[in-house]
Amino acid sequence: MAKTYTPEEAEALVHSHDPEHPANLICDLCREFYKLGWVTGTGGGISIRKDDVVYLAPSGVQKERIKPEHIFVLPFAQSSVPKPGSKRDFIRIPSKKGLNESQCTPLFWNAFTMREAGACIHTHSQHAVLLTLLLPRDAPSFRISHQEMIKGVRLGGVGKTLKFFETLEVPIIDNTAFEEDLTEGMAAAMARYPDAPAILVRRHGVYVWGNTWEQAKTQAECLDYLFEIACKMIQNKIPLEGDT
Amino acid sequence: MAKTYTPEEAEALVHSHDPEHPANLICDLCREFYKLGWVTGTGGGISIRKDDVVYLAPSGVQKERIKPEHIFVLPFAQSSVPKPGSKRDFIRIPSKKGLNESQCTPLFWNAFTMREAGACIHTHSQHAVLLTLLLPRDAPSFRISHQEMIKGVRLGGVGKTLKFFETLEVPIIDNTAFEEDLTEGMAAAMARYPDAPAILVRRHGVYVWGNTWEQAKTQAECLDYLFEIACKMIQNKIPLEGDT
Amino acid sequence: MAKTYTPEEAEALVHSHDPEHPANLICDLCREFYKLGWVTGTGGGISIRKDDVVYLAPSGVQKERIKPEHIFVLPFAQSSVPKPGSKRDFIRIPSKKGLNESQCTPLFWNAFTMREAGACIHTHSQHAVLLTLLLPRDAPSFRISHQEMIKGVRLGGVGKTLKFFETLEVPIIDNTAFEEDLTEGMAAAMARYPDAPAILVRRHGVYVWGNTWEQAKTQAECLDYLFEIACKMIQNKIPLEGDT
Amino acid sequence: MAKTYTPEEAEALVHSHDPEHPANLICDLCREFYKLGWVTGTGGGISIRKDDVVYLAPSGVQKERIKPEHIFVLPFAQSSVPKPGSKRDFIRIPSKKGLNESQCTPLFWNAFTMREAGACIHTHSQHAVLLTLLLPRDAPSFRISHQEMIKGVRLGGVGKTLKFFETLEVPIIDNTAFEEDLTEGMAAAMARYPDAPAILVRRHGVYVWGNTWEQAKTQAECLDYLFEIACKMIQNKIPLEGDT
Repeated sequence: MAKTYTPEEAEALVHSHDPEHPANLICDLCREFYKLGWVTGTGGGISIRKDDVVYLAPSGVQKERIKPEHIFVLPFAQSSVPKPGSKRDFIRIPSKKGLNESQCTPLFWNAFTMREAGACIHTHSQHAVLLTLLLPRDAPSFRISHQEMIKGVRLGGVGKTLKFFETLEVPIIDNTAFEEDLTEGMAAAMARYPDAPAILVRRHGVYVWGNTWEQAKTQAECLDYLFEIACKMIQNKIPLEGDT
Repeated sequence: MAKTYTPEEAEALVHSHDPEHPANLICDLCREFYKLGWVTGTGGGISIRKDDVVYLAPSGVQKERIKPEHIFVLPFAQSSVPKPGSKRDFIRIPSKKGLNESQCTPLFWNAFTMREAGACIHTHSQHAVLLTLLLPRDAPSFRISHQEMIKGVRLGGVGKTLKFFETLEVPIIDNTAFEEDLTEGMAAAMARYPDAPAILVRRHGVYVWGNTWEQAKTQAECLDYLFEIACKMIQNKIPLEGDT
Repeated sequence: MAKTYTPEEAEALVHSHDPEHPANLICDLCREFYKLGWVTGTGGGISIRKDDVVYLAPSGVQKERIKPEHIFVLPFAQSSVPKPGSKRDFIRIPSKKGLNESQCTPLFWNAFTMREAGACIHTHSQHAVLLTLLLPRDAPSFRISHQEMIKGVRLGGVGKTLKFFETLEVPIIDNTAFEEDLTEGMAAAMARYPDAPAILVRRHGVYVWGNTWEQAKTQAECLDYLFEIACKMIQNKIPLEGDT
Repeated sequence: MAKTYTPEEAEALVHSHDPEHPANLICDLCREFYKLGWVTGTGGGISIRKDDVVYLAPSGVQKERIKPEHIFVLPFAQSSVPKPGSKRDFIRIPSKKGLNESQCTPLFWNAFTMREAGACIHTHSQHAVLLTLLLPRDAPSFRISHQEMIKGVRLGGVGKTLKFFETLEVPIIDNTAFEEDLTEGMAAAMARYPDAPAILVRRHGVYVWGNTWEQAKTQAECLDYLFEIACKMIQNKIPLEGDT
């Protein structure tokens, strides 16, 4: 059974002087991601799991201006796995008003439950989107090898790091009208590609996860770098795999 | 009849400790827009309407260095609708000297009166300008569909958000020698395209509005993202509509 | 005869609490220009003339880390016009040691004497350099019309602003082995093109000036914008002049 | 024989109020390099040699978030030259825990021993990587002339600056599975190209050094600028050498 929180305990969940507290980190990282062009127009974000709760940014707010009191907190107990479209058991934080929960919640949950990830990042990076447009319409995945930055990416997002000459493979799924409806497609792709460290969503962006927020961020940066160089390689007719 | 202000009341209109006060916000947002390349060379800006007055940045000043005391304030009463070329009834703020009012005023007013917008942003973003150059010379509008970022844009700029698979349409009007002379062309395009959330001006930039400054900024970011990805799609011969 | 300065008077020339003092502005603006990619690798800079002296950044230092005490001050009296290769009559500031004067001095002086400019900016912007490489080898100048940003540029850099449909023309001169040796070529181009607001140097960068530092900066931004859009237009085979 | 340090002396090696102390500089510069896209995804970094010790950033940490207490210090005595794969004689700093030493150590050492460099920078800049992909597969080096920014680069990285019309040559070596295994290839290229100021590593990045951290940084910026403009020149079929 999920733990219950007094109003004071609930409020305390998002207020800390520790800059590494998830409620502070999410604000800080969203500001950084904004500068990278990953979360403009209120899109994208990051969710961090710590102990038995998950911290999430709200929906439809300017990600570079989020404050800790805007953060949603959801118990991680299996009984509370959020179903797309369902009402979620967010921990009620008295000072928070007038914000909506993110439609990304069940997608982040895929990473938490299927990979035991500690953090999951969603970006609308143009490099990710352009890559899904430059690859053939029926390409099931993005594949690249022989790039130093591959070495910053982990098997399945949470395992051993890949080697320079190994092929990184990131599945691509089609976008849906409602973000929540991506949940099943993302889960299916994660099951089919157990070594994939991320899921690309065509004409939309990417979901990346890691054991910790540091690893999730490192992998998001490495992958974004690879998406960018891959776009340039395709435009210059350089093969993405091999070292010719 | 428009309200009259004592010198102290007028001065108070642009001085506040609240970072969300329009006079402070305009300065803050212009600094952010400068980093995005939207308002370099003193071009572009943002106007915010609050209660019965409109706040505007002055003309010909470095937008990233504006201070609250530089902001112009104009009553929103219909009697004071600014005509292009006419003298405007700015509220006289004693401490302000030597600045010129913006030629954009009547264009911002189009958004305030025809859409009841709460804020209007004008950018010289290269993505907007390049897009008007890459599209056929006689294209009456920019049309794009099947992009996640479309979901951050509202019908007419102030209504319901668009859906992923819906077509966003932004009319393009020709530029004129004097910015004020765009007023009629912009109004005509807004009347012809009631669902348009913005007006592109060929070889010049874009006007974007919203119910609030947050929504105007969100839409300006989503549209700029779409202008940028559209330029890349055209250069790579990828159709802007459909999902092929 | 040039004024003489006591050590205290000389020291005072570069120390002020006023952020708009030239010695402070040069440091501030160089930091901003660095972010724009205009002065990386110690290249480029800005010189400001105020009253009877000229302020210049030193040579070969990281422009984003300059401090006021690094600034050189040179009397503007005609008797002290710096000749390329000659020793200059810098005002001796006791606290300054171990820095070299900039080879750009006589080039800045061209703007001060031939246009009575109050400030001159030199950038190594890639947009300027790429433009000189994309234009035909024998093109005597860069010409562009029908761009809104042209309206931020002044005739001769110091006169009336240009109109949207007017043609902006910036002469291009060849680079030389030593920066000082550009002095004559720049002066000849300025004499031949009295309306030019800047001089492009092939495979090197651009010199831009204005009546004040604000106008010089505004024009440097407008021109850099136009160089960038022109590169994109050439690469997409869009004519730089006219509105077809 | 290498000097021994008391715990207090060791701790003092990385704690200083002087912003120019290597332990502070490395943190500061890594933050700057991150903004340039040189060290994203924990890759890249800078090593500074001062007196008889070398300061290095740790491996696998976010370079923009390094703190002075994370810096590794290694004696520069010849007896302690780090062999790839060997255990290194880092000075034990009591407060440092849980960080790994960088695999780049022996590569930085190449610059310190073969060129008597005072600092060495390693970046994963996309301009460097794309350049190695755009040049012919069997090109032994990158060559460019007639660019102003060449004048910021020194012969062998530590000698006289090059001239505008001289040809800069940077050898390109193949990448290896483990970063340490680049040591020999880099040393061989440095021996074969004594005038080279840097070594490009195909599909990986670049190593740049200089007499001081300022010169290393200046050269890293000039070279990165040249890599970028060279990519654009190749894509526009403009020869990299000569002035045609």
